[in-house]
Formats: sequence, C-alpha cells, structure tokens
Amino acid sequence: MGDPAGISPELTAKLAALDEAHAAARLVVIGDKRVFDAGAAVAGTTTDFTVIGASDAIPSGTGPVFIDLGHLDPVTIERGVATKAGGAFALANYRHALERVARGGAQAVCFTPFNKHAMRLADASYDDEIGFTAGVLGTTGPATEFNILEGLWNARVTSHVPMADMPKLLTIDGIVAALGLANTALKAAGFAPPRIAVAALNPHAGDGGNFGREEIDVIAPAVKVAQAQGIGCEGPFPADTVFVRARRGDFDAVMTMYHDQGQIAMKLMGFESGVTLLGGFPFAICTPAHGTAYDIAGKGIANIGATRAAVLLAASMAMRK
Amino acid sequence: MGDPAGISPELTAKLAALDEAHAAARLVVIGDKRVFDAGAAVAGTTTDFTVIGASDAIPSGTGPVFIDLGHLDPVTIERGVATKAGGAFALANYRHALERVARGGAQAVCFTPFNKHAMRLADASYDDEIGFTAGVLGTTGPATEFNILEGLWNARVTSHVPMADMPKLLTIDGIVAALGLANTALKAAGFAPPRIAVAALNPHAGDGGNFGREEIDVIAPAVKVAQAQGIGCEGPFPADTVFVRARRGDFDAVMTMYHDQGQIAMKLMGFESGVTLLGGFPFAICTPAHGTAYDIAGKGIANIGATRAAVLLAASMAMRK
Repeated sequence: MGDPAGISPELTAKLAALDEAHAAARLVVIGDKRVFDAGAAVAGTTTDFTVIGASDAIPSGTGPVFIDLGHLDPVTIERGVATKAGGAFALANYRHALERVARGGAQAVCFTPFNKHAMRLADASYDDEIGFTAGVLGTTGPATEFNILEGLWNARVTSHVPMADMPKLLTIDGIVAALGLANTALKAAGFAPPRIAVAALNPHAGDGGNFGREEIDVIAPAVKVAQAQGIGCEGPFPADTVFVRARRGDFDAVMTMYHDQGQIAMKLMGFESGVTLLGGFPFAICTPAHGTAYDIAGKGIANIGATRAAVLLAASMAMRK
Repeated sequence: MGDPAGISPELTAKLAALDEAHAAARLVVIGDKRVFDAGAAVAGTTTDFTVIGASDAIPSGTGPVFIDLGHLDPVTIERGVATKAGGAFALANYRHALERVARGGAQAVCFTPFNKHAMRLADASYDDEIGFTAGVLGTTGPATEFNILEGLWNARVTSHVPMADMPKLLTIDGIVAALGLANTALKAAGFAPPRIAVAALNPHAGDGGNFGREEIDVIAPAVKVAQAQGIGCEGPFPADTVFVRARRGDFDAVMTMYHDQGQIAMKLMGFESGVTLLGGFPFAICTPAHGTAYDIAGKGIANIGATRAAVLLAASMAMRK
C-alpha cells in the first residue's frame, strides 16, 4: 500500500477484488488493515483475506493474505495532504515487501502510488524509489526505471540531469550498460528476442555530423558493441519519428538519451495509464505510472487500469522466472 | 508547383479541383502546364484555367489562373528521382510566386512539397526555404517556421544545431524575439490574443534549479519581458506535459527550446498531415508538412488534406490582412 492520503487505499481494495489479479498471482497485501478497510469502503469492495502479522510466515494455501503492520490509524490521515506519517506508512510497507521477497517469501513487488514529498518528510535520506530499493536490498549494480505502455517500453540513458551536462554524460559504456539492463528486463517480460530502437541525440540524428557528432562517435559505436553482445538493438534513429515507428509495432522498446525525449512521447501516448518497472534488481518491482491523485482521493472513481497492469506484469515476470 | 518527380503535380491538380479552395481564394498556379496536366491525369481532375505567361499581369475576374513558365517537359522527369531539372523547376516556380506577391500581384504563397536534394543540385547555395525566401525578398529580419496541426502551433527558439551547443544558444533576447515572431503570426492567423505556452529546457522544468538553471536564469525572465511587451505567453512549463495540455486546448501554441522537443510531440500527434508556415516575411507562405512522397508518386492516392489546410490558412491570413 502506497501513500494513504491519496488513491492508494481504494486502488489496493479494487485490485484485491479483481478475479483477474487472483488468477495471475497469490496476492499478499502489506499495510494496515484499517487503512485497507477504509479504502474498501470507498471502493465498495470486499476481499476475504487471511490476516497475519509482520513476523508471521505466509500460510500455505492459495487465498489472499494481508500482512497487518498495524502502524497507521486512518482517522489520523487527512485525504489530499502529504504527511510524515503517510510517508512513513508507505516506506514501511515497501521495505517490508522488499525484505520479504529478498528472503524468498514472495516473488515480486508492486506498490500503489507514493508521494515523494511525504516520503522525504518521513526519511530525509529518501531520494527516489531506485535509491531506496538499492539501500534495502544492498544492491550496488546499475539500476533504472522503465516506462511501459501497452507493450511499448521506454528506457533512458540519462535522466534527472541538466540538459547542458547531458550530452557529455553519453558514453559508449553507459549506453551499452543501459541497453543491457533493458534487454534483460524485456527478456524477463517475455520478449524473445527484444527489438530495441535507439534514439539519436541531435536533430535529424545529427544529419551526418552537420548538427552534432554524438551519433557517429558514441551512439552508433555503442549499438555495435551491444549487438556484438547479442542485444537486439538498432539505431540511432531520429528521435522525432522513432516513437511513431515504435507505436505502429516496429519495436518493443525505445532507448532514449535523455528524460524528456521519452517522456514527451510517452505522456502524449497516455503513459499516465501505463506501468513503471524498476530494472536492475533481482525481482520485478512494478507500480502504476500515475501519482497519488490527491484531488480525487476518497471519491471511489480512481481507475484501476494501471495498477492492474502493474500487477499482471509483475506476476508474469515472476512466473517466467 | 513543387518537385515534379513526387506527388506535387497531382496534389496541385487535386487542389485546383476543390470548390473549397476556390471559395477561399482566387488560385494562381505557377508551373508548366504540361506538368500540371500530367498531374491532373493522375488525379483524374480537370480545372478550367485562364493560362498566361510569365510576364503577363493576372487578368481581372475571379476564375483560376495558370502562369505557364513553359520550362519543363514532364516526359523528361522520372517519377521518384530527385534531379537538377526537378529542383530548378520548383525553385523557379517558387521564386516567381514570391516576386509576384512582393510586387503586389497576389497576397500569399503556397507550395507543394519540395525535394531539398533536388534543389541543392539546381542551386548549390540553396540551404532551406527560409534562406531562399529571404534572399529573393531581400528581407534580413528574424525568420522561422511554424508547425501547425489542427489549430495547435509549434514554434522553436533553436532548430538545426547540435544539442551540446543548444543550451548556450538560449538567451533572453532570442526567446523574446521568437515569442514576438510567433505572436505576430498567430495574430495574423486570427488568434486574439494568442495563448503561447513556453516549454522548459530541463527535466521537470529544472526542479527548482536541481537539474539546470536555464528556467530560472533565462526562460522565466524572457517570459516576463515578453509579457511586458503584450505577448500572451506563460511558462516555462515541463516539456513532457505541455503538449498534453496544449492538445486539450489550454494553449494555441507551444514555444519549444529545441527541434526535437516539439517535433517528437507534433509527429506523434500526426503533424505529417499538418501545415508549415514560414514566419518573419511580409506575407503568408504555407506548405504541407509532409514531403514529396516519391514512393506513391503517380498513383493518384496522395492525400490532399495537408495541402488543402495550407491553402486555407494562407487565404485566411491574407483576408485578415
């Protein structure tokens, strides 16, 4: 369960009432049962859980389980307000999920939307989900996030950096590493083999060097190295048509060089209803791409589509593994 | 008439057969009548022109006129091949149109698709339409191109430059000048007053300076200066949501900082069926956004939509003036 002041409680309840979710996985919900029940009241759903405590093993059987951490009374939470208590709730649930899967007690993690501000109030060292996850799991390798919309993936080489610094952060090794992460995650999700389009950096892919040389000096050599490693990638392709081609089915994924290069396209295509997958960790970690939607929290109108897609992707990746 | 080896001849013929085009403007087609007739044969259309020569005045009346430069026999042109003769044909037609409008003989210019390679074969000094137009008209002020899709405009501050150089090319003066050009063109097209959204440069609009300072140091001050000049602009807005907002009607235009920032969005939204308008010249100059479509030339299947939209926009701007 994510941030309790937004739509996370009602999304969790709606998810737990979906036959399709139970058919795909045995659901183990982590949170406070009172917060869940408040969400179920909003959603108008009921779920027959086996409720256990934080230190209990998941019982044998196939029915849904609720791990009640008993750490938040919903009457203390005001809908639509980011609070330290709300951030602490979401972080504790997520940490419990990660640790339980790391110990072998489950096979994948999903979370309903977090509120970054609330999480920073609760833990000043909190920067983003990737850093937090690596900290809990003790992983040190490269990690990233993938944005996924109806089978079209977007990965990126650089992310939250100034545009003025970005071009010099593009290296052959960095692009090859990003392609490797994407290839591994795509294969884990069943693409066999994945078809990854690599976006160019410059307008018209540099127009043969007239508008920049990164395509010639960095990106094309990186594609060659990755191809030699067996990664199914092509490019660099002009960024302003690569998503048009990917949308019509030419590729499974687009590797973009910078944040907005992919986000402009994905958000126009409706990525708010898509899924974010954390890559570079030993198991699948998925979340809906949209946020906490404080403006509609408690109204029962939150759309379950992205959360459903996140759980089905995580379940599918766990089954393949 | 644009490049004769592509779909330009059949597009010109289809346009000349549209009642809607004749209702909006008195059409004066410039080319070789034999090339037009070959296009009309492909398109299956007929138009009853008054045919005149290069040095003739346009006769009084309201019917369509054909200025026959008599400079290209279509049997010498192979469809789908860029040639010096084809480039010279398109350049001569365009030059004639510009000069005639500059002399007051007409009020706006449209051209069917050009082939840049063919035009460079014909004139080694040819760089792009903007430079050629400024050369013919003797204008020296700032000029640009606008991309227009169903009432949504995209303008940009920088264009065909390397991404590594782009951030330092963004100046307060340059952004204000670009906003001024856009504001003038939008008003000439009937937006009263225009609502221009200004895109940020960095991811999450720089996140308060964490991912770059151009929003704080350059773009926001430029927006303030432009607003003080009476230009209806707002921003900077995060680039990955500004087009989502513009598409739903929040803005008439988006001012992007670099080429792909706008082109990624516009091409996903179907800009190939849109219109390109040259801005910074004393009259409207419009063309369909798509290219010569060599692969379908002569098949009669070329879609007239973008050419129709280009002519209707040019006519509307001329009428307002």
